[in-house]
Amino acid sequence: MKLAIDAMGGDNAPGEIVLGAMDAIKAIKELEIVLIGDNEKIKPYLSNETRISVLHTEEVITSEDEPVRAVRKKKNASLVLMAKEVKEGRCDACISAGNTGALMAAGLFGVGRISGVDRPALSPTLPTIDGKGFLLLDVGANVDAKAHHLLQYGIMGSIYTEKVRGIINPTVGLMNVGTEDGKGNDLTKKAFALLKDAPINFVGNVEARDLLAGAADVVVTDGFSGNIALKSIEGTAETMFHMLKETFMSSLKTKIAAGIVKSDLKGLQGKLDYSEYGGAGLFGLAAPVIKAHGSSNRRAIHNAIKQACHMVDYRVTETIKETISTVDIDKGEKE
Amino acid sequence: MKLAIDAMGGDNAPGEIVLGAMDAIKAIKELEIVLIGDNEKIKPYLSNETRISVLHTEEVITSEDEPVRAVRKKKNASLVLMAKEVKEGRCDACISAGNTGALMAAGLFGVGRISGVDRPALSPTLPTIDGKGFLLLDVGANVDAKAHHLLQYGIMGSIYTEKVRGIINPTVGLMNVGTEDGKGNDLTKKAFALLKDAPINFVGNVEARDLLAGAADVVVTDGFSGNIALKSIEGTAETMFHMLKETFMSSLKTKIAAGIVKSDLKGLQGKLDYSEYGGAGLFGLAAPVIKAHGSSNRRAIHNAIKQACHMVDYRVTETIKETISTVDIDKGEKE
Repeated sequence: MKLAIDAMGGDNAPGEIVLGAMDAIKAIKELEIVLIGDNEKIKPYLSNETRISVLHTEEVITSEDEPVRAVRKKKNASLVLMAKEVKEGRCDACISAGNTGALMAAGLFGVGRISGVDRPALSPTLPTIDGKGFLLLDVGANVDAKAHHLLQYGIMGSIYTEKVRGIINPTVGLMNVGTEDGKGNDLTKKAFALLKDAPINFVGNVEARDLLAGAADVVVTDGFSGNIALKSIEGTAETMFHMLKETFMSSLKTKIAAGIVKSDLKGLQGKLDYSEYGGAGLFGLAAPVIKAHGSSNRRAIHNAIKQACHMVDYRVTETIKETISTVDIDKGEKE
Repeated sequence: MKLAIDAMGGDNAPGEIVLGAMDAIKAIKELEIVLIGDNEKIKPYLSNETRISVLHTEEVITSEDEPVRAVRKKKNASLVLMAKEVKEGRCDACISAGNTGALMAAGLFGVGRISGVDRPALSPTLPTIDGKGFLLLDVGANVDAKAHHLLQYGIMGSIYTEKVRGIINPTVGLMNVGTEDGKGNDLTKKAFALLKDAPINFVGNVEARDLLAGAADVVVTDGFSGNIALKSIEGTAETMFHMLKETFMSSLKTKIAAGIVKSDLKGLQGKLDYSEYGGAGLFGLAAPVIKAHGSSNRRAIHNAIKQACHMVDYRVTETIKETISTVDIDKGEKE
């Protein structure tokens, strides 16, 4: 098992990326890692080179770069070389905490799609109250989705959740504006009909209000709505923690109370920290490609590496390929 | 000024509806109210009949009823008779805390649209950190919106916010998956082009993550995405309060801390309570129609009544009508 990791992507690169890689090497036998990036900047953190090599490049894609153009022009960017390692068979999977759009472009053009999958889906696992978490896809790889794309998301998400997350016969829900059958816009009405007949445990429509309560193990939606849901959840949680902090810091009395419950509140924040579940998979590509959160620390990188290893070990890509080929999506629904 | 109010709609009907109506009568001079519903059930709460009359009916539309069918079949339902009072000119505006879909249907078929407005928009005001709040539209009246609908939402939302909320030259943002120009799906790209040239203070794309931080005074989106954003925000806030409560109840130590900060946390919850801003307007109808939250208490009903009065006093409907007629939306964008 060999992973290619973009050492220069994300807010805490390369330090936390390198530390996370070394942690993973210690924990996972026979894992090899290629860190791609600026040798000069990587070396100070790389205290143990066991099964870790560095592929040197000084070019990087920043979060400000226009994704598709950057991937085309910056042919030696760490993220682009990372995808190339996978494409040319030297690595089994890859991980970046960098520019999401650029990773999607590098994944699509560099690594390539599974034949039969029309559009890859960006698929993070989000927290639920019970700690189980749920997979949301797509959150932005494909903002003008068709119904048969959503069908494929349901199948891909189900396979990933069963194989990697170990949830047997995972429930799959369609994000919608109401739970009743027949609800929704043109897209969800068409997708509902397709998902109903798919070889998955489809439980019908789920509302955005019930996502964190664990409405389904896999929630399928178009990339635009998924992005809105993801960012609404993140924004609300951030706002509330911010307001909570202000409330606790507002007087001596509240500061005393804050002191008493500090560790408990940290626990609460931990429950909503989805880096515990690894990064967001780009499902539908010819090899596992993982987008780690931009603010990833060593622990989040370590989790993303574990996730990539599981995807390779449990043959997620191969299973998606086999399953997709057996599902007839061409029922006049394919626009 | 005379308002028609559905006394039987919502979780706390008719008690809190009647109490809220009496509060409003006390506060607002020359206001008259017609309460529509079951006299037997209303009377026990109606301790002061000054400027309040009751239009008796025993038929009701419940939250389980299929909206459009219910409005057609239950011709004497309180909600249907309420819309009729407005349609036939006996009342200036109406309010219901009942079935949202049925209210939209009764508004559309009963009250009717402003000529020139293609689709009404359900438009709640949501809280922001700074307490100012923002208007989000549409949150579900029109789940398959076209670009020119979003243009009209921008204009209607801007007029309401300036006239009723007293915000001069309110900023209008387009909810999108990124803030840069050119981001988004087919719909938002088209809508961006129309909004850019509209007679409003358009500030471009805003992300769902920044809504509660006050990204814009008015945020425009299609009914599907708006519903997802609204319910994601509500669901996350509910989940966090639930987890917070559990955290505080988990041990004697945390219970002591909870006792100390109880009133402060109540204040935090109040900041996120959007019944303070009144109900959700159904903009684009020929008279103000307000959807109060299903869980409205007397205070929320009182606020919704104030809101309806402001909409009548400041001629919001008439201004929308005048403005829409001056905007050329037929630039080949109207599909």
